[in-house]
Amino acid sequence: MPDCCLLAIGNELLNGEIRDLNLYTLSRRLTHLGFTVTGAMISPDLPTSIAEALHFLLAQSPDVVVCCGGLGPTEDDLTLRAIAEALGHPLELNAAAVQMVKRQYDQLLDQGYLQHRGPEVARVKMATLPRGAKPLPNPIGTAPGVELVHGDTLIYILPGVPAELEAIFNVAVEPQLHRRFRSAAFVEKAIRVHVNDEADVAEPLREVSRSHPGVYLKSLARPFPTAGPKGLRIIATAQAADEREAEVAVAAALGDLCDILEDAGFRTCTQQGENDAT
Amino acid sequence: MPDCCLLAIGNELLNGEIRDLNLYTLSRRLTHLGFTVTGAMISPDLPTSIAEALHFLLAQSPDVVVCCGGLGPTEDDLTLRAIAEALGHPLELNAAAVQMVKRQYDQLLDQGYLQHRGPEVARVKMATLPRGAKPLPNPIGTAPGVELVHGDTLIYILPGVPAELEAIFNVAVEPQLHRRFRSAAFVEKAIRVHVNDEADVAEPLREVSRSHPGVYLKSLARPFPTAGPKGLRIIATAQAADEREAEVAVAAALGDLCDILEDAGFRTCTQQGENDAT
Repeated sequence: MPDCCLLAIGNELLNGEIRDLNLYTLSRRLTHLGFTVTGAMISPDLPTSIAEALHFLLAQSPDVVVCCGGLGPTEDDLTLRAIAEALGHPLELNAAAVQMVKRQYDQLLDQGYLQHRGPEVARVKMATLPRGAKPLPNPIGTAPGVELVHGDTLIYILPGVPAELEAIFNVAVEPQLHRRFRSAAFVEKAIRVHVNDEADVAEPLREVSRSHPGVYLKSLARPFPTAGPKGLRIIATAQAADEREAEVAVAAALGDLCDILEDAGFRTCTQQGENDAT
Repeated sequence: MPDCCLLAIGNELLNGEIRDLNLYTLSRRLTHLGFTVTGAMISPDLPTSIAEALHFLLAQSPDVVVCCGGLGPTEDDLTLRAIAEALGHPLELNAAAVQMVKRQYDQLLDQGYLQHRGPEVARVKMATLPRGAKPLPNPIGTAPGVELVHGDTLIYILPGVPAELEAIFNVAVEPQLHRRFRSAAFVEKAIRVHVNDEADVAEPLREVSRSHPGVYLKSLARPFPTAGPKGLRIIATAQAADEREAEVAVAAALGDLCDILEDAGFRTCTQQGENDAT
């Protein structure tokens, strides 16, 4: 399977102002596209921190790195400058990006979202990209996304506004990843076990993980006072070349696990996702 | 100000099953204790990945590193083993941790949350800590937290269940950080500007950031179609030795910024936090 790393950039993610949503979105989207997400980092808006984080991720030779945050018109949005310096791709005004920014302003003026075009310096900043980069259309904002090839790694740089990030991912990133990488199927199923103590499922999980090496089984503990009737959730995931194969593997592992748990006296039931918190 | 890095461990954070809450909680709590959070990482449940992430963070010589996730009784919870190997502190059964785990099981049995004590191997695993570590009481779960000194860095290792993480932070981590580090005040205030295009505030932000170097000003863009009546949020934050000093600095910077924005024809108003999304 192709692999991928993530880098979110923004002081607001490290001082408790904003709870990350973009790393979660990217993790989910890329996993479902068949990627293994091998790590994620959050960096403040500091060029040296951004460079160190990016070099750490690139040292793992991932197929893809997705960065997000810091593409806007304000001075503290310095992601492109930091990445350009870190990778030795000098910044330069990108003619295609100039056109994209102009088109977006025209459209936002037409639609009545803006009354005027804003300072030229801001438009120039958003169209100044690392040399060799390809701008990606932003259907709902002014700052284009960026695609950049570095060695064997494809780097995407997306805005930090979650709706803009997803919009660019939909129109430009996902289609390109589909073309470039053999897509894989990702299947996830969950069960609930009527047990309060995660320790009681440790040995059954170990046993089934051994006999189904292609399936990853994870129990998600709850704190005791609230566990009560809801019990414990166990998630089984598998990636495979086609969806049917992944589904069969997950179903077989969960079937064996349920048998073992029921034999040990624990009731089990299948369960729909509830992904926001454990 | 003391500084700190964070490391969240868990495959479920990288495959889109769970949206991180712990890095957000820790960022907020530590910032409000006067720490600068200089970076955060998410690692899968793999010893080599955990070790590489920890070494990357320790190379920055932070005062404190807080790790979370992977302390439970199941086999894929291997955080303590990975950290012990990475730092060369061999794992050993910790007598104080054995007592803590026993006491928690006694209490959960007494309270009726559990009907039996669970497998001994799981209790032993949760009480096996890196040599020299100090176990931290977990008021609502079975796995103790861990405090470990490595060189000049104080390392905390907390469970991934958000309620357990916060409970241990409250009873054991925060009091110790108060004792060990000169606490600082952190003040955050926000305004709203009735403007749709972030580009319009870039120059005023630059100007006020120059004249108030102790205050960090950040505009949080919204996508255009939804920006409309809500406008743009600008957050001002400052850390200082005492709260009054930080408050005065933030108020002065926001006062100057509002004057400049109002002179340019943009309405502004003060604003309470709304931290979950931009």
